[in-house]
Formats: sequence, C-alpha cells, structure tokens
Amino acid sequence: MTRFVVNVHIVPRKGLLDPQGKAVADSLRTLGFAGVHDVHVGRHLVLDLEAADAAGAERTVREMCGRLLANPVTEDFEIAGIRPA
Amino acid sequence: MTRFVVNVHIVPRKGLLDPQGKAVADSLRTLGFAGVHDVHVGRHLVLDLEAADAAGAERTVREMCGRLLANPVTEDFEIAGIRPA
Repeated sequence: MTRFVVNVHIVPRKGLLDPQGKAVADSLRTLGFAGVHDVHVGRHLVLDLEAADAAGAERTVREMCGRLLANPVTEDFEIAGIRPA
Repeated sequence: MTRFVVNVHIVPRKGLLDPQGKAVADSLRTLGFAGVHDVHVGRHLVLDLEAADAAGAERTVREMCGRLLANPVTEDFEIAGIRPA
C-alpha cells in the first residue's frame, strides 16, 4: 500500500441557494470591492490515505464522499488532485 | 474590465490544531475506511469578479483574503486558479 494525498472540492449544487456565498459577496461589496459579481463557498478537503494505487485512492475517496463527506442532495464534489504523499 | 473566476483554497495553517479534520478522520475510520491517516478541512471559494486583467484579479483576491476571507492568525490561502468567466 502507498500513501496518497487526495484533494477534494465540495461545493453547493448549481442553482441551489448559497446563503454563505451571498453573505461573503455582500460583505466584500461593503468593504469597497465593487467588482464582485458572485461568490460560492464550499469545502476543500485534503485526505492522506493508503491505497494500492492512484485509481484505488480515487475510488475510495469517491465512496467517502458518497457516504459521509458530501450531502448528496445539495452538494457536488470533484476530485481536484491525487499525488503520492 | 473583464470578468474572471478565481478559485481560492483557505486551509488551517500547518501545525495548528484542525479539530474538524480530526473529527472527519475519526468518522471515516468508524465507517470502516481503515487506511485514513489524516484529513484537513478548509474552504474552497469561487469568486466571480471584474478586473482589468488576470494579474489584477489575483491582486484583488489576495487583498480580499487579507481583509475578510482568511484569518491571518490561523489560516493560509492560495490562489488555485484564475480563468476568464
């Protein structure tokens, strides 16, 4: 088994309300950043885990997202990168 | 002015406690993912904003991180990507 570091982005599904993103956008405009159109706030996870190979690490992390890390109703996830630890 | 989409990762500074990451790692092990060594949980922001060029968009987002988005004591941020909207 080899150790891999997997980066995952979990973001609110497009089209759903993102109240945290809206609050951040409003705060930025209040601070004077007038050019802000839109902000979305999601989670960035860095997982350090053992797997036989990179494909196995990706499979495991997709299962983790489905079972615990992402809300299947309101969120989308993407594997942003996999590298040996 | 052009619209740019900027991706930012904001993560707990290395060496500081990351209780949320530890809780996620423990939950994953409880679910049977025995190969998990470590998890870090940060934020993934997607900003849609106007700027003269990509360098200007990056400068603006760095200033936003310093003034509002990241906690300068406990967090590090990195610009993960800039593309025209």
